[in-house]
Amino acid sequence: MENMFEIAVVGAGRIGRIHAKNVAAHPRLRLKAVVDPVGDNAATLAAETGAVVSTFEAVLNDPAVRGIVVASPTDQHLDQTLKAMAAGKAVLCEKPIDQDLATARAAAGVLGGERPLLLGFNRRFDRHFGALKRQLDAGRVGPLESLLIISHDPAPPPISYVKVSGGLFKDMAIHDFDMARYLLGEEVTEVFAAASCLVDPAIAEAGDIDTAKTTLKTASGRICVISNSRRSGYGYDQRIEAYGAKGLLKADNVLESTVAHWGAEGPVLDAFQNFFLDRYAEAYRSEVEHFAAVMAGEAKPLVGFDDAVKALELAEAAAQSVKTGQVVKL
Amino acid sequence: MENMFEIAVVGAGRIGRIHAKNVAAHPRLRLKAVVDPVGDNAATLAAETGAVVSTFEAVLNDPAVRGIVVASPTDQHLDQTLKAMAAGKAVLCEKPIDQDLATARAAAGVLGGERPLLLGFNRRFDRHFGALKRQLDAGRVGPLESLLIISHDPAPPPISYVKVSGGLFKDMAIHDFDMARYLLGEEVTEVFAAASCLVDPAIAEAGDIDTAKTTLKTASGRICVISNSRRSGYGYDQRIEAYGAKGLLKADNVLESTVAHWGAEGPVLDAFQNFFLDRYAEAYRSEVEHFAAVMAGEAKPLVGFDDAVKALELAEAAAQSVKTGQVVKL
Amino acid sequence: MENMFEIAVVGAGRIGRIHAKNVAAHPRLRLKAVVDPVGDNAATLAAETGAVVSTFEAVLNDPAVRGIVVASPTDQHLDQTLKAMAAGKAVLCEKPIDQDLATARAAAGVLGGERPLLLGFNRRFDRHFGALKRQLDAGRVGPLESLLIISHDPAPPPISYVKVSGGLFKDMAIHDFDMARYLLGEEVTEVFAAASCLVDPAIAEAGDIDTAKTTLKTASGRICVISNSRRSGYGYDQRIEAYGAKGLLKADNVLESTVAHWGAEGPVLDAFQNFFLDRYAEAYRSEVEHFAAVMAGEAKPLVGFDDAVKALELAEAAAQSVKTGQVVKL
Amino acid sequence: MENMFEIAVVGAGRIGRIHAKNVAAHPRLRLKAVVDPVGDNAATLAAETGAVVSTFEAVLNDPAVRGIVVASPTDQHLDQTLKAMAAGKAVLCEKPIDQDLATARAAAGVLGGERPLLLGFNRRFDRHFGALKRQLDAGRVGPLESLLIISHDPAPPPISYVKVSGGLFKDMAIHDFDMARYLLGEEVTEVFAAASCLVDPAIAEAGDIDTAKTTLKTASGRICVISNSRRSGYGYDQRIEAYGAKGLLKADNVLESTVAHWGAEGPVLDAFQNFFLDRYAEAYRSEVEHFAAVMAGEAKPLVGFDDAVKALELAEAAAQSVKTGQVVKL
Repeated sequence: MENMFEIAVVGAGRIGRIHAKNVAAHPRLRLKAVVDPVGDNAATLAAETGAVVSTFEAVLNDPAVRGIVVASPTDQHLDQTLKAMAAGKAVLCEKPIDQDLATARAAAGVLGGERPLLLGFNRRFDRHFGALKRQLDAGRVGPLESLLIISHDPAPPPISYVKVSGGLFKDMAIHDFDMARYLLGEEVTEVFAAASCLVDPAIAEAGDIDTAKTTLKTASGRICVISNSRRSGYGYDQRIEAYGAKGLLKADNVLESTVAHWGAEGPVLDAFQNFFLDRYAEAYRSEVEHFAAVMAGEAKPLVGFDDAVKALELAEAAAQSVKTGQVVKL
Repeated sequence: MENMFEIAVVGAGRIGRIHAKNVAAHPRLRLKAVVDPVGDNAATLAAETGAVVSTFEAVLNDPAVRGIVVASPTDQHLDQTLKAMAAGKAVLCEKPIDQDLATARAAAGVLGGERPLLLGFNRRFDRHFGALKRQLDAGRVGPLESLLIISHDPAPPPISYVKVSGGLFKDMAIHDFDMARYLLGEEVTEVFAAASCLVDPAIAEAGDIDTAKTTLKTASGRICVISNSRRSGYGYDQRIEAYGAKGLLKADNVLESTVAHWGAEGPVLDAFQNFFLDRYAEAYRSEVEHFAAVMAGEAKPLVGFDDAVKALELAEAAAQSVKTGQVVKL
Repeated sequence: MENMFEIAVVGAGRIGRIHAKNVAAHPRLRLKAVVDPVGDNAATLAAETGAVVSTFEAVLNDPAVRGIVVASPTDQHLDQTLKAMAAGKAVLCEKPIDQDLATARAAAGVLGGERPLLLGFNRRFDRHFGALKRQLDAGRVGPLESLLIISHDPAPPPISYVKVSGGLFKDMAIHDFDMARYLLGEEVTEVFAAASCLVDPAIAEAGDIDTAKTTLKTASGRICVISNSRRSGYGYDQRIEAYGAKGLLKADNVLESTVAHWGAEGPVLDAFQNFFLDRYAEAYRSEVEHFAAVMAGEAKPLVGFDDAVKALELAEAAAQSVKTGQVVKL
Repeated sequence: MENMFEIAVVGAGRIGRIHAKNVAAHPRLRLKAVVDPVGDNAATLAAETGAVVSTFEAVLNDPAVRGIVVASPTDQHLDQTLKAMAAGKAVLCEKPIDQDLATARAAAGVLGGERPLLLGFNRRFDRHFGALKRQLDAGRVGPLESLLIISHDPAPPPISYVKVSGGLFKDMAIHDFDMARYLLGEEVTEVFAAASCLVDPAIAEAGDIDTAKTTLKTASGRICVISNSRRSGYGYDQRIEAYGAKGLLKADNVLESTVAHWGAEGPVLDAFQNFFLDRYAEAYRSEVEHFAAVMAGEAKPLVGFDDAVKALELAEAAAQSVKTGQVVKL
């Protein structure tokens, strides 16, 4: 069995750099090329990782490149993924596959089903959520009845980003929609979202909301609530509670260290990991590890194109619910 | 200032017994009489507390009786409260004031406004929720943005009780609706409830649901989610999370003791207080303490008739939302 | 069986007030008289509890008084206890029975053995330590191997008190020595104490120490360490760890409430109960409850004269170890 | 400045494998050679890491090899370190430098002082203890007054290992002695150890103890207690409490994940990391990172030969205290 794969990373921005370094450090992967049309990004990253700078065309045509990591701007995700798949590459594509649901759906014939296409829903690879999922699947709390996902960012992104982000549901809650589907174990049939702009009026001016509680319901009656906010005031808040017939499974936030300070102001724990690249550093490594296993034929993609479309459907339904003030049936 | 009050307790069932004992032990209160038409309940309780057995008529007409605790079956709450108020007594009435919203509203002229009528929403007197409320009011997390109330019972009541309970929203979630109003600081304008029967099909046969996630929204955009289940599998789950502009206030469950066991199965904490009479034993004492202060003119009722009606409105709205599958505007 | 007992409390200071109020509120006890020669203390307390002011002679000679709570200054504990026992009363005597070991031992013929004499080692009645003890006795961690007792006061007492206190070991650690014996399940044969004065030089000038780690060893090789400090800087620190063959039982500090604040400074828990009268309020109630059971013949004293002498022996041994810098064999 | 270093690892056992893989994955280091005379160990490890198999002589004489990791059996540590230093290599030597204090001291002229020799006291590189140390140094709890180090292994090693281990103090507690010195900030002047064999009689037959509480005292009066056991029953117990004038800093055990299970048996946390290679996986990476910085001249060794000798002195003093039953003055 083949055991060593050459990889190209397309996009040398924040996420591309993470993937490139994880590929470079992985014993089964070799980072061959970095692609980024913007300034010196590719050159800097290539120098740091021992890779070469290349172009998207060149890596598509290089038979030695077995896998491509698509970490370019969102509007190029779908196009580059289609081209890479057509060239016979395995692909790890950052989320979302596209901001437009119809456009994404249209690619189902080419991207859906069983293909070596892994979508970058990094939280599925998180140690803590993974442990919760395993215990849930093992029946530790019996059949799942309801779910609570708390997902609050430390602080809102710049307004310039908010304007092109696709909105809170597609940009931020998309991860939570995927996690909800992953844990619920059946498809959502109803979506209701209550949302407000409480964090920053500029977000409302940009046509978006910053605070939302979204309710999902499945055919068998399982209920999930997702709590989102663009600003927590205390770090990255990423928690899950899964209620079953026999009890609760609960994944909590990750602290910087186990050190507590007991002083005049009461017992103070160390801070929560504040930045998503810290909180999910290990998950990004596991994601790349899984990508290697997919290329080796040892695993099917844990999250594929169809999952990406389903998450996008939920995001659009939530946005529509906010617009109409009513429940959206799927 | 008057400083010692004679009290009659009407109803010697589970809750009546709690109130009678707390009255008897309070330095400013004297339990004079116990009223209960059923069997030996009154006699037993009177013997335990040094009170006499009496009738509702007799205590109404006894000028020495300054306050009456109404802890009778729900269908007598409103009638007895009206009569006691008419007789010039101070009243502590167990929740709900009535199961029927229209009936309750009709009593507003007599019971509403500033009167010595205290409604038994015991959770407002809980040490933990009280601490959360004080810190919220003190601005520790800035303006409130959203709220999460988790309120799961250890195990469902008997089906015979479910049938006459008025349904999950009026019987169980009514406490949570009151707490939501208490913390939100403004009235709710929209209610949406997703509900299922997942715990016991007999509950569905009785026309009720056992699992619900209810979303409340206020005029300024604050959002509250209430999670209810008739069965937790791990004890009484009573938690609140209040999200503000500067952070989160979080009240957790109360453990039987601080003792943890670290063994082969991992670190195990002591059990959660399982029964509401244990979890809220101190709150019931504080409630009676507050009732004494109300009678002494030192405090206005922390929760009065108008609050009871508002909570009932939310319960009816939630039930209607479940029936129609849509949002209910208030 | 007799079921209602009249009680006199001797000493209306801080601890006497606690006992008097707990006696007054107990359904099986009646506080008949309060005795205190100093100023208005007795009158104030009697007014608050519905008791009368009396003298020690009078309560000794009152056959209706079945039990006496000795909460006078330490130098009167032994004398009053001897007189009360001679008068046929049941006695709850505050710790220590005496500051002088030889004097205490001399009373063994009269006070030792099985008598209705309960010593006020309040921590044995604490809910949390009680739960630990029950689980230990039930074999949850197998045979005990070692023990860690952390007992740090919030802040040192006034120097005037330090001077007459008998020293850290007899005044403060005496509780820990009793707890060690209670949990170890066998007598201590070796004592070593390392001690310093780090909190306040005035304590050293008064001839005392303020920081100590004391090691106790039993014949079978069980080892206990007690950590003491006169000042914690974060509230009353009262923890126990009991290590057995199959794991650890761990009693932690008690928080004011379950409310946590998550903010910019990290997650902050509510404060530890700071004052021993708060931390042990429930234990003092349980102690009086137990005293009632002792008087009713339903229980033997959980902690008696012989325990008080043994704890005093350990305190003297620890002080001697500090003086000599060596291990003391018992 | 030189920025890439070739490294040889001597010893391909459990610890040597860890170091070799961390060296291989580090961007500034290249694993050139693996040395191990036993069977296929070296060949296997070399194949996994892309290194070559070599001999100790060869790597000493290879000018390209800048650093040597000594992870051979303990009795070769000192000899190999001396030879490697003589050959001008930087050395990372596993603890202990030697089991014999006199032998170790004799090497002070060659190994002591400021040399590129890093001793493998991995806990100094732990994220959690590092955070505690930084907060202590920053004065968050004021001057340190006392210290509590809890260090219990999950389960005892094989008796064959116990026999050659040098005893609990030199084999296991040596880490705690180093940590105590690191945190106390001044040298220990008195050592007292109470010890027993409670875990397994075979350990006593092998001449060792398995349970110990050791008290260290410094000239200024700071007191440290170290709790050791060869078997916890609940995983690897590695905790520190540092008491200062203004409060407490407390490092707790590390859990496998943040997932808790709330069920009929109470709230259960995920297990503690059980194996030292898991608990300290990140610390071993940071140690190699620091070794790279030492070679680059960017840092002085955080823990050097003199520290290793001092820790050995404390271990010998503790063993002597157990033998004599008395305090040992240094």
